[in-house]
Amino acid sequence: MDTRRIGVVIVAGGIGRRFSDGVACSVPKQFRMLGALPVLGHTINAFAQALGRNTPIVVVLPSAHIDFWKNLSARFPVSRHLCVEGGPERFHSVANGISALPDDVALIAVHDGVRPLVSGDLIARCVSCAVAHGTAVPVVPVVDSLRGLDENGGSHVVPREKYRAVQTPQLFEAWMLREAYRQPYSPTFTDDASVVEAAGHTVTLCEGDRENIKITVESDLKNL
Amino acid sequence: MDTRRIGVVIVAGGIGRRFSDGVACSVPKQFRMLGALPVLGHTINAFAQALGRNTPIVVVLPSAHIDFWKNLSARFPVSRHLCVEGGPERFHSVANGISALPDDVALIAVHDGVRPLVSGDLIARCVSCAVAHGTAVPVVPVVDSLRGLDENGGSHVVPREKYRAVQTPQLFEAWMLREAYRQPYSPTFTDDASVVEAAGHTVTLCEGDRENIKITVESDLKNL
Repeated sequence: MDTRRIGVVIVAGGIGRRFSDGVACSVPKQFRMLGALPVLGHTINAFAQALGRNTPIVVVLPSAHIDFWKNLSARFPVSRHLCVEGGPERFHSVANGISALPDDVALIAVHDGVRPLVSGDLIARCVSCAVAHGTAVPVVPVVDSLRGLDENGGSHVVPREKYRAVQTPQLFEAWMLREAYRQPYSPTFTDDASVVEAAGHTVTLCEGDRENIKITVESDLKNL
Repeated sequence: MDTRRIGVVIVAGGIGRRFSDGVACSVPKQFRMLGALPVLGHTINAFAQALGRNTPIVVVLPSAHIDFWKNLSARFPVSRHLCVEGGPERFHSVANGISALPDDVALIAVHDGVRPLVSGDLIARCVSCAVAHGTAVPVVPVVDSLRGLDENGGSHVVPREKYRAVQTPQLFEAWMLREAYRQPYSPTFTDDASVVEAAGHTVTLCEGDRENIKITVESDLKNL
């Protein structure tokens, strides 16, 4: 692995609106237990293990959850990390996370807090890609058939082999990501790759990992 | 539930090429055990339970697997079904399955054998939609960000809220599906909805179920 310093931003800003199928849910999914650790603890430890204990890791949380997480994480073997407050949209949360990283990181990895199964192999693959190309966006084939929704209420079949499902961690040279996040917010920013592209850069895709799932509904946790 | 007679075609034609990440695999995924039953047994029983024991259920298998499945399924409480031989592509397999159904079914449901978690609620929802609109194609939101692949090797962000992931069972009025499957095969036929659309019909989408997953890799079974 390249010895350039890597900073990690883990976005755990969700308030769980989609969880429990719309029913209000007191414990957001990033705080649920998964085996011996909260989901977010697995996520943090995966990066500390893959990149080294001295890797700067910033976790972005809603302000209302920061004290809760500090108390919860102190009770488990969760690697050292800094907690910062999120913003109204994912874009603002990532921007806050980037600002809290040390100035001297050369690469920045941005990862979803609710992807706790990220493997060391996947992190290494993304780092190698970013070292070689400046960016790394892990993708996997789309398993289900896809349909596009039309404006008139109809729909049409879409050739799924021409699409990829995007995962995280997404890695970028630090200067590029910092510059991209100085743009004004746009609702078209769905992930970091879209922000970097809007700033005029192209991104490089690399092979993701089907096991690196995003936990979005209750059943995802039951199945782990 | 509507009392019109429903026929079911379950496609279990895969030879497991994608399983085990490309390593040759002696037991295709539809025959693997999932709790007390083989995957395909769960799938068959879900339809028999939702639609009644007298529902005609045709299971389409590669010819090399038919005897194996008959021997295996006889050892478990698997509902009554007919086995027919598949063809070179999913299109030909579904066509063979349709031909083996009784002439008097009014609706035909086509389902992937490797979606064993299909619920009674989902089947009922699809039947209601097909009774009302003639067709039913269950879809769910796309969880991951999507990128489209460009011909030059690049890629571009795609607004995922304008897409849906397609599941099965897909239901159609029997005359419509039989007529559609008389068309010559085209590689653009990725599911039954695309075959029916190519015959000049429109399809109606209904709400799918995120738990109704398609088992495509070894880890999907481990997680169940």
